[in-house]
Amino acid sequence: MMSKIKDITCRLFQVPLPEVLNDAKHGDHTHFELITTTIKLEDGSEGTGYSYTGGKGGHAIKAMVDHDLAPALLGMDGTEIDKIYDFMEWHIHYVGRGGVASFAISTIDIALWDIKGKQAESPLWKMAGGHNNKCKAYRGGIDLQFPLPKLLDNMKSYLEAGFNAVKIKIGRENLEEDLERIKAVREFIGPDITFMVDANYSMSREKAIKASNAFEQYNILWFEEPTIPDDYKGYGLIADATNVPLAMGENLHTIHEFEYAMEQAKLGFVQPDASNCGGVTGWLRAARLAKDYNIPACSHGMQELHVSLVSAQENSGWLEVHSFPIDEYTTRPLVIENHMAVAPDVAGVGVEFDWGKLSPYEVGTASNAGDKPLQI
Amino acid sequence: MMSKIKDITCRLFQVPLPEVLNDAKHGDHTHFELITTTIKLEDGSEGTGYSYTGGKGGHAIKAMVDHDLAPALLGMDGTEIDKIYDFMEWHIHYVGRGGVASFAISTIDIALWDIKGKQAESPLWKMAGGHNNKCKAYRGGIDLQFPLPKLLDNMKSYLEAGFNAVKIKIGRENLEEDLERIKAVREFIGPDITFMVDANYSMSREKAIKASNAFEQYNILWFEEPTIPDDYKGYGLIADATNVPLAMGENLHTIHEFEYAMEQAKLGFVQPDASNCGGVTGWLRAARLAKDYNIPACSHGMQELHVSLVSAQENSGWLEVHSFPIDEYTTRPLVIENHMAVAPDVAGVGVEFDWGKLSPYEVGTASNAGDKPLQI
Ligand SMILES: [Mg+2]
Ligand SMILES: [Mg+2]
Repeated sequence: MMSKIKDITCRLFQVPLPEVLNDAKHGDHTHFELITTTIKLEDGSEGTGYSYTGGKGGHAIKAMVDHDLAPALLGMDGTEIDKIYDFMEWHIHYVGRGGVASFAISTIDIALWDIKGKQAESPLWKMAGGHNNKCKAYRGGIDLQFPLPKLLDNMKSYLEAGFNAVKIKIGRENLEEDLERIKAVREFIGPDITFMVDANYSMSREKAIKASNAFEQYNILWFEEPTIPDDYKGYGLIADATNVPLAMGENLHTIHEFEYAMEQAKLGFVQPDASNCGGVTGWLRAARLAKDYNIPACSHGMQELHVSLVSAQENSGWLEVHSFPIDEYTTRPLVIENHMAVAPDVAGVGVEFDWGKLSPYEVGTASNAGDKPLQI
Repeated sequence: MMSKIKDITCRLFQVPLPEVLNDAKHGDHTHFELITTTIKLEDGSEGTGYSYTGGKGGHAIKAMVDHDLAPALLGMDGTEIDKIYDFMEWHIHYVGRGGVASFAISTIDIALWDIKGKQAESPLWKMAGGHNNKCKAYRGGIDLQFPLPKLLDNMKSYLEAGFNAVKIKIGRENLEEDLERIKAVREFIGPDITFMVDANYSMSREKAIKASNAFEQYNILWFEEPTIPDDYKGYGLIADATNVPLAMGENLHTIHEFEYAMEQAKLGFVQPDASNCGGVTGWLRAARLAKDYNIPACSHGMQELHVSLVSAQENSGWLEVHSFPIDEYTTRPLVIENHMAVAPDVAGVGVEFDWGKLSPYEVGTASNAGDKPLQI
C-alpha cells in the first residue's frame, strides 16, 4: 500500500569508546559516530536506519540527509524502496558516487526496510533471502598497538564470549612484529580456532606478498585489505602470488566498485557494509553479485544488523563482530549461541535503539518536516 | 619558510542562476553552491580556495571542512602542501575515496596554493607548469531543454562573446531530437567553429554507439560522458566502435579513478575539475598522468581558476567556460582575447572573490580557530 514520506529526522551521536583503539591506517579511535535517520510515513508507520563512522564525517553525513535528501524525499511513496534508492543515487550523483553520499543514502534505505518489515510483519533475515536465521561469526579488534599480553588477553575474552573465530590487526612498521604477534595468537588460541588478519590497506603489493607467504604457516582463513581498496588489479596479483585467500569490501561504496573487485581482485571473501554501500539495498546487490562469483558474503561492522543480512544468504560468509559496540546501545545486543550469531525475529530490521542510553552523546538534531522546528 | 596554520574559515553561498537550467541527468538547476575556505598562517599570509556544486552537497562539504579537516589541520605547516594533501586523504579515508571528501579537500588545497603563490610572488600558471599563460577555450551551456530557437540564440551569444568553440547538451528522450539539434547548431555556426556534445552519462553503451555514429558527420570534436563514469571499459568499447573521440573527467574524484580511465576508457580528452578531484594538487596529478598517455588536459567548470592550470600544461587542452558564472563574483571575470582564455598574472591562484557581491547568498559561517567564536 503506497504511503507518502511525512517526516525524516536525522540525529548524530558521538559515542566514546572504553579505550583508545588504533589500526594501521585510521589513527587513534577515541569514539565512534552513529548517524540515525528516522522516517515516518503518512499511514503512521515509522522506521529507523543508521550509519556509523570511526569518528570523522558524521556531521557531513547528517548535513547531506538534512539538506539534500530529506527535502527531496518528503512526499514520495516510502514503500517504493528500489525507486527511492535509484532516485537518491542520481539526485546527489555530482557530489556522490560513493563517499559521504553512500553513508547518507544507507541511513535512509535501512529506515525504509525497517518500515517495510514492520508493515509485512517480517524480520529482515526473511526479507533478505531467508536462507537461515543464523550465521558464522568472528570477533575482531582494533588492536594494532596493544602490547602482546594485552592482545592475548583480548583473545581469551573473545573465546570466553563464545566465539570460535578471531581476527587481529596487522601492519606494524616492521613485518617481524606482525609475524611474532600472529604466531603468538595462533599458539594461544590453538589449532581449531579460525583466525583472520587485517592490514587496513597499509601495505604495498610487494610487502603484502611477503607477509602472506610468511604467515601462511599459521593457518590464516583470510588476509583482509592488504593494500588500498582502489587497487583491484593489485589484489589479483597478490592473490596469484600467495595462498591465503584475500578479503575486502568495507571501503567499497558503489555497486560498480564491487563489480570491479569481483572481476579483478580475485577475492576469497567479500565484506560489504550496509552502513556505507547503500543500506540493505546496496548490501544485497553486492552480496548477490558475490554469489555469481561463488564468493561468500561477509560483513563489516554493525553486527546487530548484518547478522540478519549474512544469515539470509545462500552464500552466507562470516559476520564480523566489530569493536564499535553499537549493539550495546540497542534493545537487543548481538546474540551468540553455539558459536553462531542469531538474527532477531522481530518485524523490521531488528535494531531498536535505546535512545535514553544514546542521548548523552547526541551532538545535533534537525527535522525537515513541518511538525517540529529546526533545532540547531 | 614553515608557517603554521592559524585559522580556517569555510563559507557556503547559494547563488541563484539567471534562469533554470537542465541537463540529461542532474535535473533542474536553480542555483549553484559555492564553498570557500580561507586559510590564515601564523606569518600573516592568507589564501582562499573553493569548490562548487550544482545545488546539492554544499552543506556536507562545509561540514567536513569545519568538523573533520580544519580541527586536524590547525597548527600544521601550511607551506607543506603535498604533506597536507596526503594527510587529508588518509584522515578522512573511511568516509572518503572521492565524493564529498574530494570537494572538501579541494577547497583546502587551493587555499594553500594561493598562499604559496602569494609568498613566492608567482601566478598559478607559472607554478603549475609555466608552458603558457593562455589556452583554447569553449563555451558550454546547460541547455538540454532549450527550444531550438533559444539554443541557436545561445550559440550566437557565444560567438559574439569571442568564442570559436561551443558545446551543447544532448541526451534527450529521443535520439532523433539530439540529431536535429546537432545538425541545426552545426549549420548555424558554420564549418569552422569547433563543436562538442555532452550527454552527462545518460546513455547506454549501445545508444552511445548509435548516437556517435549518427552525429559523426557533423564534425564533432568530442563526445563527452556518453555513459556512466564508472564504466571505464564501456568507454573503451564505445571508442572502439566509433570515430568521435571521447571525453570525461568531471566525475572522477581520485587519482585512482583517473588511472583506471587512462588505462581502460580510451579517451581522446580528459577533463579533471580542481574543485572536486583534490584541488590544484589533484588536478595536476591527473593532468600529468594524462600527459603520459598523450591525452590533452582539459577542465570542467570554474574557468577563472582552470584557465591557469590548463594554460600551464604542455598537454594543454580546452578550457570549459561553464554556465555557472563563478567568475562574475570575482574581481577578474574570465578574459578572452583572440578566442583564447588568458590566465591572470597576479600572485596566487588569481581568484579574488567579491565578498560584497556574494554576501547576500551566504547560508552559513563557522570558524574553527581561537580568535572567533563558532557561529552556527
Ligand atoms: Mg577491516
Ligand atoms: Mg560535462
